[in-house]
Amino acid sequence: MSENKKLRVGILGAGQLARMMILNTRHLGVQFVLFCEKITQTTKNLADHFEASLEDKEALKKFCAEVDVVTFESENYEEELVEFVENLKPLYPPKKALLVAQDRLKEKTLAKELNIPTNKFIKIESYADLLDASQKLGLPLILKARRFGYDGKLQFHLKEKKDLLALENENLEGFLAESFVPFSYEVSLIAVRGVCGEVRFYDLCRNHHENGILMETRNIKNKKLFAQAKEHMQKIMEHLNYTGVLTLEFFVLEEELLFNEMAPRVHNSGHWTIEGADVSQFENHIRAVLGLPLGSTESSGSYRMLNCISEMYDRNQILLEDGYYHDYEKEPRKNRKLGHVTFSS
Amino acid sequence: MSENKKLRVGILGAGQLARMMILNTRHLGVQFVLFCEKITQTTKNLADHFEASLEDKEALKKFCAEVDVVTFESENYEEELVEFVENLKPLYPPKKALLVAQDRLKEKTLAKELNIPTNKFIKIESYADLLDASQKLGLPLILKARRFGYDGKLQFHLKEKKDLLALENENLEGFLAESFVPFSYEVSLIAVRGVCGEVRFYDLCRNHHENGILMETRNIKNKKLFAQAKEHMQKIMEHLNYTGVLTLEFFVLEEELLFNEMAPRVHNSGHWTIEGADVSQFENHIRAVLGLPLGSTESSGSYRMLNCISEMYDRNQILLEDGYYHDYEKEPRKNRKLGHVTFSS
Repeated sequence: MSENKKLRVGILGAGQLARMMILNTRHLGVQFVLFCEKITQTTKNLADHFEASLEDKEALKKFCAEVDVVTFESENYEEELVEFVENLKPLYPPKKALLVAQDRLKEKTLAKELNIPTNKFIKIESYADLLDASQKLGLPLILKARRFGYDGKLQFHLKEKKDLLALENENLEGFLAESFVPFSYEVSLIAVRGVCGEVRFYDLCRNHHENGILMETRNIKNKKLFAQAKEHMQKIMEHLNYTGVLTLEFFVLEEELLFNEMAPRVHNSGHWTIEGADVSQFENHIRAVLGLPLGSTESSGSYRMLNCISEMYDRNQILLEDGYYHDYEKEPRKNRKLGHVTFSS
Repeated sequence: MSENKKLRVGILGAGQLARMMILNTRHLGVQFVLFCEKITQTTKNLADHFEASLEDKEALKKFCAEVDVVTFESENYEEELVEFVENLKPLYPPKKALLVAQDRLKEKTLAKELNIPTNKFIKIESYADLLDASQKLGLPLILKARRFGYDGKLQFHLKEKKDLLALENENLEGFLAESFVPFSYEVSLIAVRGVCGEVRFYDLCRNHHENGILMETRNIKNKKLFAQAKEHMQKIMEHLNYTGVLTLEFFVLEEELLFNEMAPRVHNSGHWTIEGADVSQFENHIRAVLGLPLGSTESSGSYRMLNCISEMYDRNQILLEDGYYHDYEKEPRKNRKLGHVTFSS
């Protein structure tokens, strides 16, 4: 028996990822403080919170003063903000990881440096760059904003010459061209690394996207791909001296992985771990950033997670089918992720 | 897809049972409102709440106005209060169950009426009654307050004549004498009944008490005892037209069950269901009172729950041993339940 230290975690953001971090970790006796522009029903009544702009340095100081460690639910914070927070309190995952993961060019460059297979890519700053890239990569190619695109936003699939021409008058600063990969399917690997360097891996996730939005994830047992993904994960985590949960997304092409992108946080493709793994990605992320021992990432079954986009599934129907129902209590809006359901099979 | 009704549950009380009901059910999109004298860290930042005395009828009215249904985490509410609430909003489990379960004499009498084996018992109002009971039941006997005793409080094990004599000048109104049962061990059965009468049973729990306080629970697979317990549960639930989770406690004597007492609520001996059952007792209780489809009560493994009494276990040590750690964030006090840990084996 012992006097356990009171632990307080600050989270930048107050969406469904913050919600699930709290709901799945509060039992450890961990307290949470949120920093967000405006609290919504999603995280209402779940934590202390500061409602303020990210520009508000005084509010940020007070927020940091109340917590032992700061983490986040989105990687899209400016470097200056990240440094400001980091100077006040430990910030995990580390700044380096966050800055790499928020820029698709940096991600791909890092993969290349670490000899992790990825598709070809070329930095784009202008229409001339794009034309040049189309010569080098051929068509079709994928044009993506280096920052802020998610759920398929700010991504263009350029199939023919006329798709290129249509962009002649667009501002293409901060874009990236990638060779098109005729992949069989997409997978993600979610792992957690503790402050002392221990790494634990969840099952590989097979993901199905529609219009760039994740619709469905299943955990799969493919030894060959899992071994590749773990090797890549280990390299990246060590390079970044990572702490917390990291997600890597890959294309599967002829039973080989091609690195696509990363997220330095808990990830939608890991929501099945709430019911499907011994300890969820959410709890393990918080354990890691607090320096607590990591929990088992083992899964004894097969799980299927379906996102609820634009509208929720019928709650009663899902419960009748023995599904696990997660409603983020968000206002419905087209293409918005409102919740998810998980089935064990 | 459909517009799911917003659901709001009111809970009388704000201790660890309320905490676990919220933490384990909020994902369904259910919102909670607590009514309590004073909110503590245990349920701080988990729900809207009213801080008021139970005498404060205006506050109770406002509380009821905000919710769809009311439930509770303790059975020790006065009949008048229960009726007041029930006249404003549906109250589950039903008043009848609550009034029976708060009085050990009524519990035993009900068991007897329903032909559920129980030990002999005699109502006590005076020292003369006690002397009389000691003739009829013999020594040793157990003397218990009919109401408010829990965790071994207000219970006396009278072994010899001198233990009787010591009580000569005590006020024994509202007591109950029971024959002593030289039981092998104690078990509890937790079940949930939906509004339409469907009943689902968790595994039988084997409980170990010390000084009247539950210390340890394991789920066990004893077909004979389980069959008996289910039969008794079904009878009681039907008689009470029960909705929600009900817990029955039994002595095991020569592989037969003797009814001991009941709790019309989620129960300490069911905390292992958070990790050990497909859907926990907490979620199933809330599903039942809301009229939602019940979840699976199946358990695929063996679980051991240990209460943390007076002080918490060392968090890091438990996590290193792959235990599930639950800290109710209560102020330590002698003999107080501060948390629990669960191990899968």
